[in-house]
Amino acid sequence: MKIETIRHSLAHILAYAVQEMYPGTKFGIGPAIENGFYYDFEFVEADKRGYQRGLTRITPEDLPKVAESKVSSPTRAIAKGQDERSSSPTRAIAKGQDERSSSPTRAIAKGQDERSSSPTLASLRVIEEKMRELIKQNIKFEKKIISKKEAEEIFKAQPYKLELIEELTRVRPVSDLHGSDRCQIYQSGNFIDLCRGPHVKSTKEINPDAFKLTKIAGAYWRGSEKNPMLTRIYGKAFKTKKELDDYLQKEAEAEKRDHRILGQKLDLFSFDDEVGAGLLLWHPKGAILRKIIEDYLYKELTAQGYQWVVSSHIGKLDLWKVSGHWELYRENMYSPIKIDEEEYMLKPMNCPFHVKIYKTKIRSYKELPIKYAELGTVYRYEKSGVLHGLVRVRGFTQDDAHIWCGPEQLSTELTKLLKEGFKILKTFGFKDFDIYLSTRPEKYAGTAKGWQKATNSLKYVLKTLKLKYQIDPGGGVFYGPKIDIKIKDSLGRPWQCTTIQVDFNLPERFKMNYIDKKGRKQRPIMIHRALIGSIERFIGVLLEHYAGALPLWLAPEQIWAIPVGSRHKKYAREVSQKLSDGGARVEFKDENKTVSKKIRDGEIQKIPYLLVVGDKEMKTESVRIRSKNKDLGIMKLMKFLEKVKIEITNKK
Amino acid sequence: MKIETIRHSLAHILAYAVQEMYPGTKFGIGPAIENGFYYDFEFVEADKRGYQRGLTRITPEDLPKVAESKVSSPTRAIAKGQDERSSSPTRAIAKGQDERSSSPTRAIAKGQDERSSSPTLASLRVIEEKMRELIKQNIKFEKKIISKKEAEEIFKAQPYKLELIEELTRVRPVSDLHGSDRCQIYQSGNFIDLCRGPHVKSTKEINPDAFKLTKIAGAYWRGSEKNPMLTRIYGKAFKTKKELDDYLQKEAEAEKRDHRILGQKLDLFSFDDEVGAGLLLWHPKGAILRKIIEDYLYKELTAQGYQWVVSSHIGKLDLWKVSGHWELYRENMYSPIKIDEEEYMLKPMNCPFHVKIYKTKIRSYKELPIKYAELGTVYRYEKSGVLHGLVRVRGFTQDDAHIWCGPEQLSTELTKLLKEGFKILKTFGFKDFDIYLSTRPEKYAGTAKGWQKATNSLKYVLKTLKLKYQIDPGGGVFYGPKIDIKIKDSLGRPWQCTTIQVDFNLPERFKMNYIDKKGRKQRPIMIHRALIGSIERFIGVLLEHYAGALPLWLAPEQIWAIPVGSRHKKYAREVSQKLSDGGARVEFKDENKTVSKKIRDGEIQKIPYLLVVGDKEMKTESVRIRSKNKDLGIMKLMKFLEKVKIEITNKK
Repeated sequence: MKIETIRHSLAHILAYAVQEMYPGTKFGIGPAIENGFYYDFEFVEADKRGYQRGLTRITPEDLPKVAESKVSSPTRAIAKGQDERSSSPTRAIAKGQDERSSSPTRAIAKGQDERSSSPTLASLRVIEEKMRELIKQNIKFEKKIISKKEAEEIFKAQPYKLELIEELTRVRPVSDLHGSDRCQIYQSGNFIDLCRGPHVKSTKEINPDAFKLTKIAGAYWRGSEKNPMLTRIYGKAFKTKKELDDYLQKEAEAEKRDHRILGQKLDLFSFDDEVGAGLLLWHPKGAILRKIIEDYLYKELTAQGYQWVVSSHIGKLDLWKVSGHWELYRENMYSPIKIDEEEYMLKPMNCPFHVKIYKTKIRSYKELPIKYAELGTVYRYEKSGVLHGLVRVRGFTQDDAHIWCGPEQLSTELTKLLKEGFKILKTFGFKDFDIYLSTRPEKYAGTAKGWQKATNSLKYVLKTLKLKYQIDPGGGVFYGPKIDIKIKDSLGRPWQCTTIQVDFNLPERFKMNYIDKKGRKQRPIMIHRALIGSIERFIGVLLEHYAGALPLWLAPEQIWAIPVGSRHKKYAREVSQKLSDGGARVEFKDENKTVSKKIRDGEIQKIPYLLVVGDKEMKTESVRIRSKNKDLGIMKLMKFLEKVKIEITNKK
Repeated sequence: MKIETIRHSLAHILAYAVQEMYPGTKFGIGPAIENGFYYDFEFVEADKRGYQRGLTRITPEDLPKVAESKVSSPTRAIAKGQDERSSSPTRAIAKGQDERSSSPTRAIAKGQDERSSSPTLASLRVIEEKMRELIKQNIKFEKKIISKKEAEEIFKAQPYKLELIEELTRVRPVSDLHGSDRCQIYQSGNFIDLCRGPHVKSTKEINPDAFKLTKIAGAYWRGSEKNPMLTRIYGKAFKTKKELDDYLQKEAEAEKRDHRILGQKLDLFSFDDEVGAGLLLWHPKGAILRKIIEDYLYKELTAQGYQWVVSSHIGKLDLWKVSGHWELYRENMYSPIKIDEEEYMLKPMNCPFHVKIYKTKIRSYKELPIKYAELGTVYRYEKSGVLHGLVRVRGFTQDDAHIWCGPEQLSTELTKLLKEGFKILKTFGFKDFDIYLSTRPEKYAGTAKGWQKATNSLKYVLKTLKLKYQIDPGGGVFYGPKIDIKIKDSLGRPWQCTTIQVDFNLPERFKMNYIDKKGRKQRPIMIHRALIGSIERFIGVLLEHYAGALPLWLAPEQIWAIPVGSRHKKYAREVSQKLSDGGARVEFKDENKTVSKKIRDGEIQKIPYLLVVGDKEMKTESVRIRSKNKDLGIMKLMKFLEKVKIEITNKK
């Protein structure tokens, strides 16, 4: 039995349970999806309350409350307890294109407490119980092919099903299951659904302990905001309870690390509806984190021979025609801006500007490789539905660089690039990587020979550095072969960050030259490379990797100095000052709260070191150190300062 | 005699000379302007060469060459010599709205050597001689009022004059000099011009040694690019030769300091037609300079209690409607960009984003003042004609900050701001400032009382800090009073940089609050302030102030290590490495050039320290130091390193 079949059948069982518990409910559709299933409903009670089709936001109340008495106390405890906090908030958005837009960020941006979904979750537990009850009855799934008329009779009270019947019988070819006058239905107990199957033979095949209803969300009928918004109930399902538990635990862990939630908790960044979706506002602490990363990259790449440049965020449309972006990348670019009767574009890439700087002089082979780097903020169109916190945004800052070299320098440059690249990624605490080499696609710029040479260089370099990689045959961009690196976080999840691309196209399009040893004009080879990819996405990955507890060198606030009583304030201030003079980012926590509250706050904020100072510490010029929820005891202030300095220097 | 009258008469004499020397020339207009005059001509020879009206760019050849024999050798020597390099290049731009667009930058961007204008300048000298000859004839200026018919007869071969006659007699009221059937003309010798005067009585009143023709440029007839492009000849004129010489000397000095020329010479930045006018490309050395300034501001302002934020370059149009920019500042904003059926704007200001960050939390009086700073790149529309190097661009990075405080904190905050602001400006080497206080205009936001209080605070602060200032009555922006500071450069030229503006408007529009001591909601006062104004403009001012010879701490390249012979290379490399390890920006000049050539290059590039190392230096672990074109003798390497370190630390 395929797990997808079980999931699909569970969707029917969910609908069956809802039909029994909430008579009069209108049914949408209910497919199997990754790791589970869902079903879309229109609840009568919601309609009664004046819930306007497609206009009102869905709220927890849209799922009709089950009588309190029905909620058995252990279920209820779970429903309100910490465990459930990990389930996604139920607040959907008003204008989302599809259900994917019901992201926690949105809820967070609006200051919703995710626990407000608890009544809903309690209701879900009750529906789950009903489903288990049904499953235990060994209900059969029976397939029938009936006429359109019969179908219309069966679903006469189901407007969404009638719409489907009309469509299925109209457009499908006769050979299909549905079509002209035929409809396929599945009956299980008292529940009948229009359905192409397949299904389990009977609910015997379903493990009643291996599924769970996880959340509700609003979803427009057939995904169009012109249609009514239905209530979608999601479930997760597996073959065994262990698989389910493992999945839920992993999901809970991932959700504790959700950078969108951490971003709010640590006060790093926000989005704002009035500014626009996918456009970031970096708060002071987020800006410090950015600056630390930027300064580190600046220093590191300068030492590696990169030269920094700064370019405009807009450029004439013609520039993008020459570069080829207008032809090949237009769907990711925003509409033009008119200036003095000419059209300008927000840049989706920095490359043409760097090419222009290269071209301000006649270049000699002696200058090569020329390596330009920029922390360039680019703007690319993404559908609102796929925007996701920091990792999928509309404006982001690439750690972009371009290298121009002669063919004989390619291997050396690629080797340096990869070696130095891994050094940087490892400094940020990443250890595991998935490496992909993408080769020539069917359509390509440059010559087959050039591609072969470049691809060989890439392979040679990967081999020399003893890096394991997979080949993605034909997966290169049209302009050249590339290496992509996904970094794996502490949960083993891969995140696409690094890309190294050889480009035969732009040097040709922009007629770039250098003068070789013999005084002849030559085209340089161009390499595009982004190491961390984008600062925004990388910060998102860092937050998830470290579950917000950033290492000392990256933490926007490294140390809090907390006085025990008011007579310790002076000393606590001195401690702050000395550490601060020593180069640490320290906050003197002076506000009117108890010590334990301050410690709790500091732990929520994931401050690396919380220093508590009272009589004893004052007398001995010491500090009591708390780090990662543990008391590390007392240390002399100067010794602690040394320790901190060393840790920062070593980027720990 | 007013100098303007003399200048206007000189324009006629110029036209007279041209009429005599280039028969058949068509005449445009010739007014007095600041420091001189010009006259627009259409040369016949240019027409003959197929010079297409309004389509072809003007070139030096457009001014017909005078027979070589006429150019006396001293004149010619000057024309080609260093002196003349200071006169502006003659290359005008093809599309400029008016003559101001004939900027050297444009010529520079295209790799034009400004000396290519020498043949033209030689021609100008000859025309000048002709003018002197005419002046010495004591030619009278005679005013006449004639009929339209008579005028049409006189100017029958002059299409531009006929156009003016038609217009003047059509639209002017009868009471005017021109109008219905009357035209006023001036005759001087054989030259007659349509003119409202006034003029000198005779050329006796003109000092033949107190004027000079300085450049030619292309200028569209009546400033419209739909019209033919004429050749404009400029002259400077004063009452005495001394005044002229002083002016020319000052101009030459200013031109040696022209940041657009220095920007190219020092390889700091460029503009590119394909990228777009007023949009900068910062080359590696320019990017270093930016980074030094940015890092200094970051450190300094962080120490002053500012928190840094980072915001998007675009935001929804509605945001700008709320802020009021759409209503009041639209002409400086670019056209909207469409994203998912909504309109977004490139930001001309950072303020609304900072307000949004403020509003992500409920703020307490305990948090005030909240001070957000951002190096925010904004885009503002400027007419192409007024764009000028770095000081007038379309995209620039503001050192922007916003302060929110309670009314009782206003004076303290303003005092800090000014004090700390001057400290920063002085660090960059500026000593003289012009300070302006602008008060309430007729239309204003907020209350008269609030304005009074804020204006008093500004005055109080200026007084307390013993700063001399001028009042600009009614010159405040509608939203609040302000202080503007112009910094004066080493030539005494004022540059608008700093602005400090109190704002009663945005806190109201965005409904900003804080909770006061008694738990009540209050509106904070908002201060906008930019200290250096924009990084781009400020770099322009720095380059002009220092004539490109930036102080050590700002110089992108601080030291060159030059080996005398190949056997000194190893030591020179060591020297570079040690200085570099010590934190200096050092170049090891290894290339195949003579020592003297390298020194000359270094002096052109305004490198603060050129170190020459040969046998003696190698033996004694020393360096021979050259700085600002002077030999400072030999110094032990380690001692020199210490000296450099101290100078960098002290920002010298």
